[in-house]
Amino acid sequence: MAGLSTTLPLTPESVRIAYSKIKDHVHRTPLLTSKTLNNIASTSSSNSNSAPKFNIYFKCENYQRIGAFKARGAFHAITHLIEVLGLDELRRRGVVTHSSGNHAQALALAASHFSIPAHIVMPTISTPSKIEGTRTYTDHIYFSGSTSDEREAVVKEVINKTGAILIPPYDHPDIILGQGTTALELQEQYNEIKIEKNEKPKLKLVLTPLGGGGLTSGICIHFSNQLNVKVIACEPNYQGGNDFEIGFKNTNPPKRIEKVNTLTIADGLRTPVGEIPWKIFTTTTTTTTTNKTSINNEKKNLENVFSVSENQIENSMKLVLERMKVFIEPSGAVSLAVVLYNQEFRQWVYEEQQKEGGEAWDIVVIFSGGNTTIDAILGIFGNSTDKEREEGIDGLDGKATAENVAG
Amino acid sequence: MAGLSTTLPLTPESVRIAYSKIKDHVHRTPLLTSKTLNNIASTSSSNSNSAPKFNIYFKCENYQRIGAFKARGAFHAITHLIEVLGLDELRRRGVVTHSSGNHAQALALAASHFSIPAHIVMPTISTPSKIEGTRTYTDHIYFSGSTSDEREAVVKEVINKTGAILIPPYDHPDIILGQGTTALELQEQYNEIKIEKNEKPKLKLVLTPLGGGGLTSGICIHFSNQLNVKVIACEPNYQGGNDFEIGFKNTNPPKRIEKVNTLTIADGLRTPVGEIPWKIFTTTTTTTTTNKTSINNEKKNLENVFSVSENQIENSMKLVLERMKVFIEPSGAVSLAVVLYNQEFRQWVYEEQQKEGGEAWDIVVIFSGGNTTIDAILGIFGNSTDKEREEGIDGLDGKATAENVAG
Repeated sequence: MAGLSTTLPLTPESVRIAYSKIKDHVHRTPLLTSKTLNNIASTSSSNSNSAPKFNIYFKCENYQRIGAFKARGAFHAITHLIEVLGLDELRRRGVVTHSSGNHAQALALAASHFSIPAHIVMPTISTPSKIEGTRTYTDHIYFSGSTSDEREAVVKEVINKTGAILIPPYDHPDIILGQGTTALELQEQYNEIKIEKNEKPKLKLVLTPLGGGGLTSGICIHFSNQLNVKVIACEPNYQGGNDFEIGFKNTNPPKRIEKVNTLTIADGLRTPVGEIPWKIFTTTTTTTTTNKTSINNEKKNLENVFSVSENQIENSMKLVLERMKVFIEPSGAVSLAVVLYNQEFRQWVYEEQQKEGGEAWDIVVIFSGGNTTIDAILGIFGNSTDKEREEGIDGLDGKATAENVAG
Repeated sequence: MAGLSTTLPLTPESVRIAYSKIKDHVHRTPLLTSKTLNNIASTSSSNSNSAPKFNIYFKCENYQRIGAFKARGAFHAITHLIEVLGLDELRRRGVVTHSSGNHAQALALAASHFSIPAHIVMPTISTPSKIEGTRTYTDHIYFSGSTSDEREAVVKEVINKTGAILIPPYDHPDIILGQGTTALELQEQYNEIKIEKNEKPKLKLVLTPLGGGGLTSGICIHFSNQLNVKVIACEPNYQGGNDFEIGFKNTNPPKRIEKVNTLTIADGLRTPVGEIPWKIFTTTTTTTTTNKTSINNEKKNLENVFSVSENQIENSMKLVLERMKVFIEPSGAVSLAVVLYNQEFRQWVYEEQQKEGGEAWDIVVIFSGGNTTIDAILGIFGNSTDKEREEGIDGLDGKATAENVAG
C-alpha cells in the first residue's frame, strides 16, 4: 500500500480530488425516493407516540460496479499507487488483499482495468457466488482458514513470493477518501433535485452502515466542514456486531474493540472498526468562518451511532424489496432499519423537530450494496414467518434483545 | 365501460393521444441495460452451438405506479370515460372491475385520483398483500368465489345497485391503447440513448409477456406502421399457460382458447388471450410508403409467440434479482426467459443475424411488474435447489416438458 506519507490529508478537498480520479471508472449511482417509505418512516410505531417526519433520499450503491461502494475505494487506491510507483512497477509487483466479500471483487476489478495482477486471499468457507464474482476479474485466488491470523499468513506468503502491495479493505486513507466520494456525489445529486424543484437544499442527516468504517469515515470527512449536515453510523447489534456503539457510547473511557465475532445477517458489517476510522469518529473538526470577525466552529465528525436487531434489518430489507423493488443485501438495509425502528434515534429527531416547528427532515439513507442471492434470502427469511418478524419488531424487549444478550 | 363507438381507432396515432392524456399521471419508467445479462444472453447454451448476439434494453414497468404497467390502461380508461360521461356523472356512478391483481390496484388508484368510487371484486383467495394494496385506494372491496361465473355474478350485483361502469382488465380498446403507451415511451427512451451515443437507432425486437393481451396488443398497435420493429409475445407453458401459442401456432385452423387453468408461477399470465387482442395478433396492418410510386407494405402485427418453462422463468427472475439488483415478479421475467432459453427463438435470431453479417441486435425486454413478496419468493425458490433449476433448464425435454404434458 502507498505509505501514509504520500497519501492526501483527510479533508473534503482530498475527497474532491479522489472523485476527479475515479469518476470515469465508477457509476454515478441513482439517488431514489419512495413516498411509501416516507409514509412508513413518518408514522409512529406501536411503542411510541412520537413520530418524526422524514423525506428520505436513498443512495443506491447496490447499483455501483461490482454491486457495492467498494469499487470507489479500490479504484482510488490503485490510481494513487500508479501515481506513486508508476504503472510498470505496479504491473510487475501486483496488489494483494484478503477479503471474503465486496472488497475482493472491487480490487480485482480495479486492478484488471489497468492490467495489474490482483492476488486475492479468501477464506475457504466463502460463498461460491463471491468466489465466482472475484474469479471474473482475476485468476490469482488463494484460500485460507477464516481467522485473521490464518488469512494474514497467506497474504504474507504472497507478498514474499511476488512483491505485491497490500491494499487493506478499509483502514487506509486512500480507501477512506475513495469511499468518501459517495458523500460528495450524493450531495451533488440531492442539490440538483432540490434546485429542479425550486427548493432550498437543507440536508440534515446522512445515515450509513458501519462495519470497518471506510465508508462511514469517508462520509464524515466530506461533511466535516458542513455544520448543518450530520453523519449517523448504523450497526447490527446481534452478538456484539455493534462494536463501535459498545466501545464508544457504552464504555468509559471509550476504547476501540479490536475483535468482533458475530454472525449477523449483515455480513458486510461483521468487522471491528479500524484504527483510522476510530480516530476520525472520536474527534472533531474546526472550521473558521470569516464574517467581519473570525469564528471557529467545532463539529463532531460523527454525530452519533445507533444499532438495530436482526429482525429489524430483515424487515427493512423486505420493505425495500417489496415496496421499492430494489434488491439490496442485508448490510445495505441497516441504516433504513435505524430510521424505521431505533426508538432512541426517532425520539431524538422528533424532539429536534419539535424545537424547530415540526418540519420534516431531508435525510439520506445509504444502500451500501446489493450482493446477495436468492439462496441467501431463503436462508434469512425461510425460517421465520411474517408474524414472527413483526413481533420481533414491535417487541424491542423481546426476541431481538434476547439475541443480543446471547451475543 | 365507454362503448366501442366512442373509443379511438386502434392506431399508433391513438396511442400517442392516449399518452398525452395519461403522461402526467404515470411514471416514465427507466430503460436499463446490463452488460452481464448481454453476455449471458449472447453466449451459446449447452444444447446449442448457435449464439445469437443481443444488446438488451429493459423497460422497467415494475417501477410504474402500483408496481406494474396496468396503471397506464386504468388512467386512460378513466380519463376517456370522464370525457364521454362527464366527471359528475362518473363520480355519481363509479367504476367496477373484478381482478385479483394489478388491474384492481391500478383502477382503484386512477379512480381515487379523480375522486370516483371504485368497486373492486376480488376472489376470497387473493393474497393479503394484494387486498391491502387495493384497500389503500378504495374502501369498496367485495369478495367472490374464484371462478369467472362467481366473480361476474358479484360484479352484476354491484352494477345493479350502483350503476357503476365496468372497466375490464384487458379486452377493451381504451385499456389496450393505454398499455400501448409503454411502447411509445420505450422507443422515445431508446432513441434518446442512441442519439446520445451518436449511434443510429436500429431497434429490432420488443419482447413482452402475454397474458390477457392488453399490453402485448397495445405494443403491436404502436409498432404496426414500423416494418423494422417486430413484436414477440412470451408465454409460460406450464399446464397450458401458453394458450395463444397452442391456439394460434399449434391448431389448424387457429382458434382462440377461451379457458385456461394453469397454476404457473407467472400468475399475471394465467388468463386466456382476450377477443380484441386475438384479432390484433392474428391480422396484418398495411401501410403505404410513397416514394415516386406508392408501395403497400404489409406487416404482421405480432411477429411470433414463444413459451418457456417454470424453471426457465425462475432462473431469469433469479438473474435479474441477483445480477441487475432489480426486483421483478415472475410474470415480468417471462420475456427474458425466452431470450435466454427458448431454442426456437434463439435459433431464428441466430440465422437472421448470420444472413445480415452477424451484428448484435438491439432488443427491448419488458419487465411488466414487480408485485411479488419475499414470502412468494420463498414459495417459488424454497423447494428447489440451484442444481435442480439448472437441470430443468438444460434438459428441455425433461421436467419442464413433462409438466406441460401433465397440464
